[in-house]
Amino acid sequence: MALPSAVRIVEVGPRDGLQNESAMVPTAAKIELVDRLSATGLRTVEATSFVSPKWVPQLADAAEVFAGITRRPGVAYPVLVPNLQGYERARAVGADEVAVFTAASEAFNRRNTNAGIDESLERFAPVLERARADGVQVRGYVSTVLGCPYQGEVPLADVARVARALHAMGCYEVSLGDTIGVGTPAKARDMLRAVASEVPMPALAIHFHDTYGQALANVLACLEEGVAVVDAAVSGTGGCPYARGASGNLATEDLVYMLHGLGVATGVDLDALVDTGAWLSGILGRATGSRVTRARASA
Amino acid sequence: MALPSAVRIVEVGPRDGLQNESAMVPTAAKIELVDRLSATGLRTVEATSFVSPKWVPQLADAAEVFAGITRRPGVAYPVLVPNLQGYERARAVGADEVAVFTAASEAFNRRNTNAGIDESLERFAPVLERARADGVQVRGYVSTVLGCPYQGEVPLADVARVARALHAMGCYEVSLGDTIGVGTPAKARDMLRAVASEVPMPALAIHFHDTYGQALANVLACLEEGVAVVDAAVSGTGGCPYARGASGNLATEDLVYMLHGLGVATGVDLDALVDTGAWLSGILGRATGSRVTRARASA
Repeated sequence: MALPSAVRIVEVGPRDGLQNESAMVPTAAKIELVDRLSATGLRTVEATSFVSPKWVPQLADAAEVFAGITRRPGVAYPVLVPNLQGYERARAVGADEVAVFTAASEAFNRRNTNAGIDESLERFAPVLERARADGVQVRGYVSTVLGCPYQGEVPLADVARVARALHAMGCYEVSLGDTIGVGTPAKARDMLRAVASEVPMPALAIHFHDTYGQALANVLACLEEGVAVVDAAVSGTGGCPYARGASGNLATEDLVYMLHGLGVATGVDLDALVDTGAWLSGILGRATGSRVTRARASA
Repeated sequence: MALPSAVRIVEVGPRDGLQNESAMVPTAAKIELVDRLSATGLRTVEATSFVSPKWVPQLADAAEVFAGITRRPGVAYPVLVPNLQGYERARAVGADEVAVFTAASEAFNRRNTNAGIDESLERFAPVLERARADGVQVRGYVSTVLGCPYQGEVPLADVARVARALHAMGCYEVSLGDTIGVGTPAKARDMLRAVASEVPMPALAIHFHDTYGQALANVLACLEEGVAVVDAAVSGTGGCPYARGASGNLATEDLVYMLHGLGVATGVDLDALVDTGAWLSGILGRATGSRVTRARASA
């Protein structure tokens, strides 16, 4: 089992997690969430989304959240932006890293963003251009990399093409997301290999949802391929409103537990992370999606 | 990823699952559970336990359950027996496969069975002897193979020694159980390797609990070592009353989903299994512990 010696975790709870939670979270709690997460040793905390509140009402307070967080040196706080207008809103409150997103499935992209994949990529061109001029880092997300609720199978060539396009446009890292959580380890590994033939492995991240309980096993298979950046959301929040029966993201606590058990360094204080997950469950008024946090809470 | 082409799943829900559920399950429902499980294509369904009702009140109706099930040709129905007396009770209702159990942790075995490991093994000697004369197959369980709530670390040599002893006494298969679910993939693999140096791999099974969400990842790591028998419990029932914050066994549905995704044959009809898991959750009056069943239920 050849594994990377260290993994950088991209904590997506405050964005990908919260945006799909039905309980409305007060702005102050969102700020506290980001600050608690950055205090655990996480080096990347996706803070919020500047997508229109019409589409993501939970994150309508993106500007207030971003302005309210205490930025810790050495921690990156990317924010999601859908287009140049979102980019400008993010920049106005001081964001210096952003993330753009498209699907690998044409059908999903049209339903999700009302645009084809190529149209989405065109929409990002001015964002990437402006970011380069501003010295702003851009992360790219590719969703539905292991299946789509509308078109079913998503060809590996389509995933690789979209990932390559985002990387070629200037994304320093491309995160490959199994949005509906249908993938299993060999499929995840094959997908990663296909993309890694087009984009260098150090520029790739993996992003799994735990809908069918496969997320950690998929991570393990991909770590063996050499990927060293993994997205996760504290307490396993989120899900995908377009995925039937979706449970949430891979829980960061469960990921950290596995990585530390494997001797892979993360820099994250698991106890502090578990405390944050338990606190967030209280805010959301629901059971935690992290088995580690559940086990610790009942200890 | 070299994987076995087929895996035999040992369904332990009616025994290891139910024995640790607090809701008392009617005898008729237990019988229906076993019959539903055998109808899914599972080839081994552990039916009940002949441990004293004083210790496992949930399974006090072991004889009625075993006498009530419809035995399907080609399906094995092992039952747990603690000693010769339990063996005889099981035989009286027609059991032709039994299982014996001990821990790899001396501290755990003393607390759990009020006997040292060697004493447990001695207690099984007449069971194994009688079983051989009766033509009854015996499966052996070793618990706490990746950690103990009382002594903490469990040396690999201890696990290997106990597994070897059970195999040498005549157990056709030895199931290695992470009773408190603390293990991670590399540790699980190392443990399996240590045992496989003493007991042939085809005589080994793995048994993981999902307390910390690691069970499927552990299974994946062990499949890569060549193990081809995996224990699981439908709907992720059970847990371990001695493990703080224990959630249940690995859910059979989630295991089957992964195996089929990996192209590993199980002979199990996943849809029928999910139906059974959802039905059992209703009987237990609690949410399913299987993410697959949860996802399908909300579809």
